[in-house]
Amino acid sequence: MNAALKENSHDYKIRDISLADFGRKELDIAEHEMPGLMSIRRKYAAAKPLQGVRVTGSLHMTIQTAVLIETLKDIGADVRWASCNIFSTQDHAAAAIAATGTPVFAWKGETLEEYWDCTLDALSFPDGKGGFLGPQLVVDDGGDVTLLIHKGYELEKGDESWVNSASGSHEEQVIKNLLKRVAKERPGYWTRVVADWKGVSEETTTGVHRLYQLAEAGKLLVPAINVNDSVTKSKFDNLYGCRESLADGLKRAMDVMLAGKLAVVCGYGDVGKGCAHSLRAYGARVVVTEIDPINALQAAMEGFEVNTVESTLGRGDIYVTTTGNKDVLTLAHMQAMKDQAIVCNIGHFDNEIQVDALNTSGAERLNIKPQVDKYTFKNGNAIFLLAEGRLVNLGCATGHPSFVMSNSFSNQTLAQIDLWANKDAYSAKVYILPKKLDEEVARLHLEKIGVKLTTLSTEQAAYLGVPVEGPYKPDHYRY
Amino acid sequence: MNAALKENSHDYKIRDISLADFGRKELDIAEHEMPGLMSIRRKYAAAKPLQGVRVTGSLHMTIQTAVLIETLKDIGADVRWASCNIFSTQDHAAAAIAATGTPVFAWKGETLEEYWDCTLDALSFPDGKGGFLGPQLVVDDGGDVTLLIHKGYELEKGDESWVNSASGSHEEQVIKNLLKRVAKERPGYWTRVVADWKGVSEETTTGVHRLYQLAEAGKLLVPAINVNDSVTKSKFDNLYGCRESLADGLKRAMDVMLAGKLAVVCGYGDVGKGCAHSLRAYGARVVVTEIDPINALQAAMEGFEVNTVESTLGRGDIYVTTTGNKDVLTLAHMQAMKDQAIVCNIGHFDNEIQVDALNTSGAERLNIKPQVDKYTFKNGNAIFLLAEGRLVNLGCATGHPSFVMSNSFSNQTLAQIDLWANKDAYSAKVYILPKKLDEEVARLHLEKIGVKLTTLSTEQAAYLGVPVEGPYKPDHYRY
Amino acid sequence: MNAALKENSHDYKIRDISLADFGRKELDIAEHEMPGLMSIRRKYAAAKPLQGVRVTGSLHMTIQTAVLIETLKDIGADVRWASCNIFSTQDHAAAAIAATGTPVFAWKGETLEEYWDCTLDALSFPDGKGGFLGPQLVVDDGGDVTLLIHKGYELEKGDESWVNSASGSHEEQVIKNLLKRVAKERPGYWTRVVADWKGVSEETTTGVHRLYQLAEAGKLLVPAINVNDSVTKSKFDNLYGCRESLADGLKRAMDVMLAGKLAVVCGYGDVGKGCAHSLRAYGARVVVTEIDPINALQAAMEGFEVNTVESTLGRGDIYVTTTGNKDVLTLAHMQAMKDQAIVCNIGHFDNEIQVDALNTSGAERLNIKPQVDKYTFKNGNAIFLLAEGRLVNLGCATGHPSFVMSNSFSNQTLAQIDLWANKDAYSAKVYILPKKLDEEVARLHLEKIGVKLTTLSTEQAAYLGVPVEGPYKPDHYRY
Amino acid sequence: MNAALKENSHDYKIRDISLADFGRKELDIAEHEMPGLMSIRRKYAAAKPLQGVRVTGSLHMTIQTAVLIETLKDIGADVRWASCNIFSTQDHAAAAIAATGTPVFAWKGETLEEYWDCTLDALSFPDGKGGFLGPQLVVDDGGDVTLLIHKGYELEKGDESWVNSASGSHEEQVIKNLLKRVAKERPGYWTRVVADWKGVSEETTTGVHRLYQLAEAGKLLVPAINVNDSVTKSKFDNLYGCRESLADGLKRAMDVMLAGKLAVVCGYGDVGKGCAHSLRAYGARVVVTEIDPINALQAAMEGFEVNTVESTLGRGDIYVTTTGNKDVLTLAHMQAMKDQAIVCNIGHFDNEIQVDALNTSGAERLNIKPQVDKYTFKNGNAIFLLAEGRLVNLGCATGHPSFVMSNSFSNQTLAQIDLWANKDAYSAKVYILPKKLDEEVARLHLEKIGVKLTTLSTEQAAYLGVPVEGPYKPDHYRY
Repeated sequence: MNAALKENSHDYKIRDISLADFGRKELDIAEHEMPGLMSIRRKYAAAKPLQGVRVTGSLHMTIQTAVLIETLKDIGADVRWASCNIFSTQDHAAAAIAATGTPVFAWKGETLEEYWDCTLDALSFPDGKGGFLGPQLVVDDGGDVTLLIHKGYELEKGDESWVNSASGSHEEQVIKNLLKRVAKERPGYWTRVVADWKGVSEETTTGVHRLYQLAEAGKLLVPAINVNDSVTKSKFDNLYGCRESLADGLKRAMDVMLAGKLAVVCGYGDVGKGCAHSLRAYGARVVVTEIDPINALQAAMEGFEVNTVESTLGRGDIYVTTTGNKDVLTLAHMQAMKDQAIVCNIGHFDNEIQVDALNTSGAERLNIKPQVDKYTFKNGNAIFLLAEGRLVNLGCATGHPSFVMSNSFSNQTLAQIDLWANKDAYSAKVYILPKKLDEEVARLHLEKIGVKLTTLSTEQAAYLGVPVEGPYKPDHYRY
Repeated sequence: MNAALKENSHDYKIRDISLADFGRKELDIAEHEMPGLMSIRRKYAAAKPLQGVRVTGSLHMTIQTAVLIETLKDIGADVRWASCNIFSTQDHAAAAIAATGTPVFAWKGETLEEYWDCTLDALSFPDGKGGFLGPQLVVDDGGDVTLLIHKGYELEKGDESWVNSASGSHEEQVIKNLLKRVAKERPGYWTRVVADWKGVSEETTTGVHRLYQLAEAGKLLVPAINVNDSVTKSKFDNLYGCRESLADGLKRAMDVMLAGKLAVVCGYGDVGKGCAHSLRAYGARVVVTEIDPINALQAAMEGFEVNTVESTLGRGDIYVTTTGNKDVLTLAHMQAMKDQAIVCNIGHFDNEIQVDALNTSGAERLNIKPQVDKYTFKNGNAIFLLAEGRLVNLGCATGHPSFVMSNSFSNQTLAQIDLWANKDAYSAKVYILPKKLDEEVARLHLEKIGVKLTTLSTEQAAYLGVPVEGPYKPDHYRY
Repeated sequence: MNAALKENSHDYKIRDISLADFGRKELDIAEHEMPGLMSIRRKYAAAKPLQGVRVTGSLHMTIQTAVLIETLKDIGADVRWASCNIFSTQDHAAAAIAATGTPVFAWKGETLEEYWDCTLDALSFPDGKGGFLGPQLVVDDGGDVTLLIHKGYELEKGDESWVNSASGSHEEQVIKNLLKRVAKERPGYWTRVVADWKGVSEETTTGVHRLYQLAEAGKLLVPAINVNDSVTKSKFDNLYGCRESLADGLKRAMDVMLAGKLAVVCGYGDVGKGCAHSLRAYGARVVVTEIDPINALQAAMEGFEVNTVESTLGRGDIYVTTTGNKDVLTLAHMQAMKDQAIVCNIGHFDNEIQVDALNTSGAERLNIKPQVDKYTFKNGNAIFLLAEGRLVNLGCATGHPSFVMSNSFSNQTLAQIDLWANKDAYSAKVYILPKKLDEEVARLHLEKIGVKLTTLSTEQAAYLGVPVEGPYKPDHYRY
Repeated sequence: MNAALKENSHDYKIRDISLADFGRKELDIAEHEMPGLMSIRRKYAAAKPLQGVRVTGSLHMTIQTAVLIETLKDIGADVRWASCNIFSTQDHAAAAIAATGTPVFAWKGETLEEYWDCTLDALSFPDGKGGFLGPQLVVDDGGDVTLLIHKGYELEKGDESWVNSASGSHEEQVIKNLLKRVAKERPGYWTRVVADWKGVSEETTTGVHRLYQLAEAGKLLVPAINVNDSVTKSKFDNLYGCRESLADGLKRAMDVMLAGKLAVVCGYGDVGKGCAHSLRAYGARVVVTEIDPINALQAAMEGFEVNTVESTLGRGDIYVTTTGNKDVLTLAHMQAMKDQAIVCNIGHFDNEIQVDALNTSGAERLNIKPQVDKYTFKNGNAIFLLAEGRLVNLGCATGHPSFVMSNSFSNQTLAQIDLWANKDAYSAKVYILPKKLDEEVARLHLEKIGVKLTTLSTEQAAYLGVPVEGPYKPDHYRY
């Protein structure tokens, strides 16, 4: 990011505005693959339920997200956007959005300082008087915006303990520094932000987990909608999205033959399931690691070897973390791996792999190409680390394909509409979208792929005790 | 069932006691495949938490169920058993159990009248004075015992409307006739039964559905545990059990080549998923029918054509119902099918297929062998109906294999223990076993198949906010 | 086989003629699944190219073979039949054939002495004068008829070395004893047989291998057609047949859950490929053993672990031999297996497993049910041996399904027609059916399963340099 | 290609020599994945069997080919190289090779005129006197070098009929123009080339087909080795290579979700098999088209719908040609496709799709990005054509991965060694490498992926009638 770009007079910070035409061409293609979002546009075109509502988004700035942004704008929102990952931006997508006048702050390959500055930019709606308003709604992915507001608000309420504490990682210190700077430059800012803030919809397992922890601790400031646990999100995006995008990331990064390789998938949740099945379909042998006996038994019933990471060292060719946990692959693991093993993460944060420890271990680092680094240990063995331990599908490829993201983002859009419509009714808890909307999201995607549904007769519906038009399943149903 | 057998002096009604040795040999084999049940036996061998408790079971009288029965006895229970399906009994299993002195009332190929008499027999614990006590706990599959007690009790409370109403099926009339007979022979019996009854654990989706309806209507008489919705039941037995046993039923019945055939699977719940994947793995092309857009989208993402039954008529070779609904395959459907199509049900009741209508349609019926009938229509086309529309895996093969049933039956056993332990604490609602027990059931099955779990470090557990030893997932997690 | 049956006045030896009706019903079903054979019947109904030709068959006496037999008869042949395996006969199939007056000598569970007597019976066409003629054509499976004739002829030519040599197995001695008896009872018989004999068509990899060895040694007495290596035989029957029938045999024998098990498939030829893929589809983990580096690399590319039998001892749950080799599973292997491992063979002869050594090892043998034996070793571990080491799909289930056998048997029928038509042109070599016939066999099976072929334009055919109507591929093409 | 580059003083024509370092890094990675080639380097390091032999290669100039080139050089050859496809060059691979002083003439995105000039350059070894010598050996892929030499030689022998005939395509005319130019500039050149030429090894099905046609017509000028039909080539590269690289090409080009799509794979040879299985594994429904009834039956047995292209129009989302035939997808097909269908070729030549007709059809062409074009028809529907109808895996991704190409290129290297060693023994026919070498190639790749082979005992080898160390299978064995 050169200095010139950062100081441009436009209300955006992106890589290259000249990529806008290319981005628009791919946006046109994506719209055909995102029937849910396009249907929502048509349905709410007149009513514009988010008319004038300030929405901040912090979510991978890809082509698919661009269709989401334009959907939110179509139904009336005033949108500002940042990415939620330093490597996940598609620069032509950002350019296409910026070219339409929507403020966007994202480029592929941000530093951590730049990343958090962008997040702040996305939060800062000019008030026309030289100051800034905060968002009324937030679209969050991983909870970084939610974290920043909560931590800023905590600081302004007088609790300085966190910002002055020792940091466990470089990124943590970057956030603290930012908050201290904001405290100086915009006194009382976070309190004003919280006053206007009506809710957040969260995309991921990890971010949702944080929200439930905040709510349990009585610290959650606004109503939140757990989009991740809509069936049409977690059982589709996490599972089928990763089934398509993991191999895509591996191939673009390494051009490696997957057949015949021993692949180790850490975690057998929805993401792990998608990854394990994809790798097997390519002819890889897959070892799954798990902490949960139920998921472990599922993996075993699907024919996977379930074992520990330790048991695979020296024979594993490819390692993929999918857990949402930290320290899943340690430095000691990596030092004991087979020569030229490939290591990557498709879970959430880069701390699934001990990247910091690797970088300070004395291993020699050779950059092969962007997002592909070779680390050679003193014993002569080397490993390849992809996307610096961040999401390999977004860092090394282009993330999930449009069709599956249309499901997730339809849920996001419906969640935003719901939060605004119920801003007076909801309290500071974590909500899930009603099953009827979940079924509706699925329904919007069936025609595109030629699915013909069967309709219940009234006798059958009565026999089952469900309405003809649904919802069809009890809430505990697992799909 | 010949008359002689019915009137034997022993407290059992089975096909042939001389099959007991063969049954015992297969029981020995099954025990090795049911580590969950064997572990529970060892754990509770001393404490005997069901000591002296009268337990009535109504559940397919197979080898696997025999291991369940002996587990319940090992932990102290006084057990009487019937099957829950006229074709599902394995006669050597029933013989092995009867030979040990446990009253069992079940044989393969009961009439409906015999079936309901057996159910009553299983409910009737001799009181030593020529009369009968009822069970204190019930193990139910499909809810027939629960239905009988509730309807009997309703009648004794003075509501004669149901027993005197017109019956929608032959079976319904059989039940009414039985209740009328009991009313004469054992006045006040059901009221006494209800007085002692402390709970029921239910095995199936269909039975659970009935329980929730009773509870919502305020009519449920005792606490119930929904065993079906333990993850280690519905996501294993329903899915992986059917993945193994559907083809087994088809093969033993018809010896048909599955590769190259067009198979139609009605319903894509857990049972349907297992069936569809099994058939595809054999090289069949599978068309899925669905009413629920979410399940339909899942099927489409797995590469199945999702269409209506009507669209398949004339090209479908094999039809399998998996829905829990009625009239899924109608007479009109069957009349329009391709010549020599195979029709079967692996859902729940035989009314998924319009068997009654078929039998009175004028189609010529030719029995090929037990549980395989060929119906030839006037147009010259024929279909094969398996197991008279009842569960094809139990009617034409031997049901689910032992290992997966060990999961289900471990849940059943834990549910029985839990119901008795909490008989004073629980109210007449439907409960689900706590996730900790669900995880425990899974854990009991891992060693047998060589699974090595990973253990969380305390730092990781703290990061995730879960105990090191679990439970690991929120209740809404779908696996 | 009781003595009464053996001495019946009819020209057949079977289990129970009263099973004929049941057999006929299943024959009717099978005919619908065997479009190739039925098409050949229609095509040659008038010409009857085998009119009056004496044909001896030695091939598993199943329902499918019954359709083959009736096809041969329909096109004019005078047929006598035996099975080629002591366990593979379906008694109702044999009964249905016997009931039509065709001499058949086969029942499930023959002794080796009975087996070879039956083979001789099938070879012995009454000459109307109290003596016997031999066949003019032979349908062979594994080469037992071919072996018997060659060895008998060798003996009559004065070479007594083999019949007087020490025997490596009990079966070898049985054959020698039979030849000595024939030598006494029917002097000069084999020489007369050879004089009339015009050819043999062979079904299996193993039998073909024997034929090539005879031909190379200059000892082959008649023209032979290698049916096994028609593409529509070996790439269908061996592969897709076993993909369906292995699990069928395992399930009927053991009712075992395959998911989660570790299965060891010895050999990755067409049979091994079908077995390995079937087991994996059930959720088993599969280890393949191979001697051939190319097949081993194929297995690895399909994601299978390729390792030695030794490496699996103690962890393998199921062992399947598919090799055509001997001593693949030794006594030492079996003694070191995990407790309750299942051992079976789907290759060719029972010597793939060291059954004789097992039987004399001192292990305690317990028969569970027909074709299922439990051997308990001194260390307390046990294994289950299926079908006494003979073909598990035929011994424990009903062999390959009809549709795939229709391909194999269409090749057999065309081979018989070809041998007779060219009896004067062919020499004592091993022939393969021309590719045009191979394609024709495939073509006869497409309509049944709804396949629509594309037709080459003349321009395209010219571009490819092939006729519009085929054959399309060079002889070395591997499919 | 700018003019400056074409006229550089070095003996290469590539995109950008500064990419050499990046190319070398990827070459280092590839070497680890190509154990066959590295083993051959070690084995022949001292003997250098191609010492001083002039070798011209015409084969996709990728990273993998670079490892082949350096292997040929390591064993002594004097190499010149061109690509065999205008889009398949990886510019960093070409740069890495050029930087070592090896003449290479290839860049991604050549015009047809440039392409054939490059082919001529690769054929032209400077004689040190300002003239050119031809190669002694040729590595060919698709037969372009072989074609050029044969046609040039034919012209010099006085047959001008072809060069003066009307051309069926633009490319055909380009070749003729080149030959006319050479005739003027280098009189007698082709005759001198042929005098030195000792053989060609050919990589592909299509090129091999041409060779057999030349041989049958008696026009083949040199011995040829059919590398394609080594098992370790066609059953690995064509099948497993495409299983990995088709989706890679589709993803990099279109980022399209494959799950739920209807994909049409034209042809079910090895390439089609790899493609169809890959697409299904992603959750696409696959329709296969075939002309050959045997391949069609294989597809049906694997559960694919086999139908005509016409039957899919309006419902197919993705079309892939794999046939080696021409006009498989016609303009009329494309005009009738569903809006936004994706069309690509992974067979051989771009004439599988009627690209020329599409370009002159009046459809509006919009370039989305390199190798991705959108054509909008007058009816408003559009299709996406990838790589202008040339190989999508090479045009839109990076071709097959290294490991599988190591098999193919090990065969190529052994073929080159064999041709030179037998240059006096071989005649102008098409040879296949002996099975022993085929097995050796496989063997060289086993250790890398952890395969443990089983070794025959001498008794077993005798029983099978094969040597302990192989070869193990008869020549007609199909794997």
